[in-house]
Amino acid sequence: MSTPFHLTHTREVAFGDCDPAGIVYTGKIVDFALEAIDAFWRGRLNGTGWFQMNVDLGIGTPFVHLELDFTGPITPRAPLETRVRFARMGDSSVTFEVEGVQQGRACFAGRFVCVFVEKATMRKISVPDWVAGHVKGLVQAGQ
Amino acid sequence: MSTPFHLTHTREVAFGDCDPAGIVYTGKIVDFALEAIDAFWRGRLNGTGWFQMNVDLGIGTPFVHLELDFTGPITPRAPLETRVRFARMGDSSVTFEVEGVQQGRACFAGRFVCVFVEKATMRKISVPDWVAGHVKGLVQAGQ
Amino acid sequence: MSTPFHLTHTREVAFGDCDPAGIVYTGKIVDFALEAIDAFWRGRLNGTGWFQMNVDLGIGTPFVHLELDFTGPITPRAPLETRVRFARMGDSSVTFEVEGVQQGRACFAGRFVCVFVEKATMRKISVPDWVAGHVKGLVQAGQ
Amino acid sequence: MSTPFHLTHTREVAFGDCDPAGIVYTGKIVDFALEAIDAFWRGRLNGTGWFQMNVDLGIGTPFVHLELDFTGPITPRAPLETRVRFARMGDSSVTFEVEGVQQGRACFAGRFVCVFVEKATMRKISVPDWVAGHVKGLVQAGQ
Repeated sequence: MSTPFHLTHTREVAFGDCDPAGIVYTGKIVDFALEAIDAFWRGRLNGTGWFQMNVDLGIGTPFVHLELDFTGPITPRAPLETRVRFARMGDSSVTFEVEGVQQGRACFAGRFVCVFVEKATMRKISVPDWVAGHVKGLVQAGQ
Repeated sequence: MSTPFHLTHTREVAFGDCDPAGIVYTGKIVDFALEAIDAFWRGRLNGTGWFQMNVDLGIGTPFVHLELDFTGPITPRAPLETRVRFARMGDSSVTFEVEGVQQGRACFAGRFVCVFVEKATMRKISVPDWVAGHVKGLVQAGQ
Repeated sequence: MSTPFHLTHTREVAFGDCDPAGIVYTGKIVDFALEAIDAFWRGRLNGTGWFQMNVDLGIGTPFVHLELDFTGPITPRAPLETRVRFARMGDSSVTFEVEGVQQGRACFAGRFVCVFVEKATMRKISVPDWVAGHVKGLVQAGQ
Repeated sequence: MSTPFHLTHTREVAFGDCDPAGIVYTGKIVDFALEAIDAFWRGRLNGTGWFQMNVDLGIGTPFVHLELDFTGPITPRAPLETRVRFARMGDSSVTFEVEGVQQGRACFAGRFVCVFVEKATMRKISVPDWVAGHVKGLVQAGQ
């Protein structure tokens, strides 16, 4: 399939995101990826991102794993496009694949795994049905 | 004049921008204001923001003063619009006025003063002519 | 009195705190000042900082005003010492004065004003008695 | 060997590092790990961290890979200790292992790989001799 990454999050890159090397600081790149995943949830779940899950629904989705390969520097000279897709769903976990691109040039690619928990107790719960429905369809479609 | 703030910078507010109070952390609000000022420069100077000034032109614009009044919390439930305008130009300084708004509700307002310096020496310089021309006209027009 | 700033918060300055100008980014300086104020509360109130107030006691202390003058760049070549003292207490507000110094060289000085609120409603409350006792004595002593 | 992690970096965790879940935001954890690696370089190389490499020596060390497992939340109720050690040295790369702990409880563990580059061109270079000497001995000693 030619465009497996369904949602793309575009953001400006700012001077303050860069370090003395003149490129975006590694820590900021992780922030950008996280921001794109949050936007992906909102886009997939009718506006329900981490804030709504946490504050309105009492659900947390802490990450248990993340990994990133950095293949090129990110510069404020162009916007950053971060593509996100669901890669896998377990009983209580969801795996995202992310890919950052500037003007067609790959900057980073990686994988983030979160688990669903009850916010009050931090105990694992199954992926809620109203989420799982969305995810399942998209994992099967490779999106 | 009804809309003195000429450029408005709009950004999403993310879960990670909020603290345990469930609203945007004070430090992040300053980041949002700074980001809007940088975008204002780019909008006013044909794409020349802090990064280009610093890296391409050897010019710095460190802030010597900032002040902000916070009039309402900022939430991830709506985008943040930050309006920026030039308020004053001195020999080597420029003063910005900023105003943050969510869905018509005022969140913050403030003033930021920067000075132009030669990057290599950090010594003050006059506002470069190619900048001053733009600024002067807009200060007079109240924009 | 020669040392009116009673508590000094010392922190390393990191590469990632700096921007392409090779000095600490303006937004980060505000973060450093805020961090020092939080540490000041903890130091003054037997370990009760913003987190404990918010999460354990249901009290918020949002800032309603901040202002900073920047008098010199901050570099990762030395630690930053931020001195904090209480300057004033109103019915529901507390004003802090902060001063940042590196190796005896002043970097910034400013004033931060917060108000006490009930977290659930965000409504202003009087400075709680157990806080006011501490603050009053120290404001009088100029500390 | 009982204490393979040679250098431990301790830092306070602040209110502003936490998100509405009341624990440290994922992006901040990566920042903490990076900060510890920078401190590790300074500790190993007589004060030469990323800033000195970059600004004084014209050397960059961009990360090409990072991965982290998160095993427990990080709270502002206790300091965070991040242990760092060299795990491997390639021709131009160095691999770090990091481990974050709060009061004896494991919070995260991971691996970061950086490559040495000439700052001006961003081209890979061999690990400089004055660095490699330090690293080699410590990799062999498992530190």
